[in-house]
Amino acid sequence: MDVKLQPGERIDDLERNGYRIIQNKNGFCFGMDAVLLSGFVKASPSDRIIDLGTGTGIIPILLRAKTGSTDITGLEIQEQSAEMAERSVLLNDLEKEVHIVRGDLKEAGTLFAHKTFDVVCSNPPYMKQNGGLKNPEEAKAIARHEIKCSFEDVAEAAKILLKPGGTFFLVHRPERLSELMEILRKKKLEPKRMRFVHSFVEDKAVMVLIEAVSGGGTFLKVEKPLIIYKEKGIYTEEIREIYGF
Amino acid sequence: MDVKLQPGERIDDLERNGYRIIQNKNGFCFGMDAVLLSGFVKASPSDRIIDLGTGTGIIPILLRAKTGSTDITGLEIQEQSAEMAERSVLLNDLEKEVHIVRGDLKEAGTLFAHKTFDVVCSNPPYMKQNGGLKNPEEAKAIARHEIKCSFEDVAEAAKILLKPGGTFFLVHRPERLSELMEILRKKKLEPKRMRFVHSFVEDKAVMVLIEAVSGGGTFLKVEKPLIIYKEKGIYTEEIREIYGF
Repeated sequence: MDVKLQPGERIDDLERNGYRIIQNKNGFCFGMDAVLLSGFVKASPSDRIIDLGTGTGIIPILLRAKTGSTDITGLEIQEQSAEMAERSVLLNDLEKEVHIVRGDLKEAGTLFAHKTFDVVCSNPPYMKQNGGLKNPEEAKAIARHEIKCSFEDVAEAAKILLKPGGTFFLVHRPERLSELMEILRKKKLEPKRMRFVHSFVEDKAVMVLIEAVSGGGTFLKVEKPLIIYKEKGIYTEEIREIYGF
Repeated sequence: MDVKLQPGERIDDLERNGYRIIQNKNGFCFGMDAVLLSGFVKASPSDRIIDLGTGTGIIPILLRAKTGSTDITGLEIQEQSAEMAERSVLLNDLEKEVHIVRGDLKEAGTLFAHKTFDVVCSNPPYMKQNGGLKNPEEAKAIARHEIKCSFEDVAEAAKILLKPGGTFFLVHRPERLSELMEILRKKKLEPKRMRFVHSFVEDKAVMVLIEAVSGGGTFLKVEKPLIIYKEKGIYTEEIREIYGF
């Protein structure tokens, strides 16, 4: 379906199933984080999936392509982002499979039936409310700083929504790992698989991908490092595969 | 000084300052874990250092060579290991700089004055008391399984012994990372630096090295992965450097 673009908007090709996404060059555009998280998620076609804080809907669209699931929800609190996500869903004729819901993830327990999702994922704001420079553009600030929700709110929503044994996938900053793990365990979301992302194999980690299982036992697998560049400006084979180049 | 060897014992060269160590081929011999932990420790010549569960004394001897500290203690509960460690100290003429103390780390608070160490390190047993196959050789079983102490006991001892701002260095299994981090934070030992060890860059992590600071703030650096082999049977340059080849 053709959709109308607003001033400043453009359509980007996702290199997956011919899917495309609407972004605004002045607003928050999806980053490598969302793409790597989608690559890290494991889900089957019958899984019911929700993305908490979906922004312009990049993760639900990528997961639709990757997993074949026909029941994917994106929850977004910002009206402008949610509306763009809805137009991207129409653009890709995914109205039946991908549902954009406007709302606050702190209200997840009233918006959705409890324990009804197999998979919850989230690319939440990385920075503390008062940490770092805040972007004057509200949509960007909300996507990057814990203004509307803390990581504990995200984990609480995941806990409420997941079926027992269901899986929570997230991407975050390694700098906050000890807090993240403490909060996950407090919510009985046991970290089971983890992967660190390094720009080069000689660099510190810049992102961490975590899979946690609701009610899972203690046993964590730290997978091989995910390296972005094999040399300056040249992606590794794995990154090219994840991006679908 | 020359020392007497018992049946089954041999002297191994440590490739550092000419230091050597006595090991028993039927007992617990130090592994790469101890060497990598020594390589990971940061300490200055004036630091007072203690190694909890020092076994045959490999870590104090390596740290003596690496840091130049003149006040290093190794605490060991097993008589046979402690006695071997003492003979290795004599063998290297290190009686003034390295002190082997027989005792239980659960009694650390009565054995040593509180908050008097700059650095605590430990290569503790990795396996739960009832986890995995237990070695019929008692010394090996105690070194590998949490028979005489749990990780919480080790962390509690580190907490008692460290000066405010002092540093705790440990090596452990990534599989237990979420428990380790929870316990460290409970003891106000904040993880600040972490490094995962992989046999090959394509393999999952087999060890994790952690630096935690007593009373430190939340901010973790996950360093570049430490890769053991560049190809089958051939160590990477970094491993060769740590071993002093």
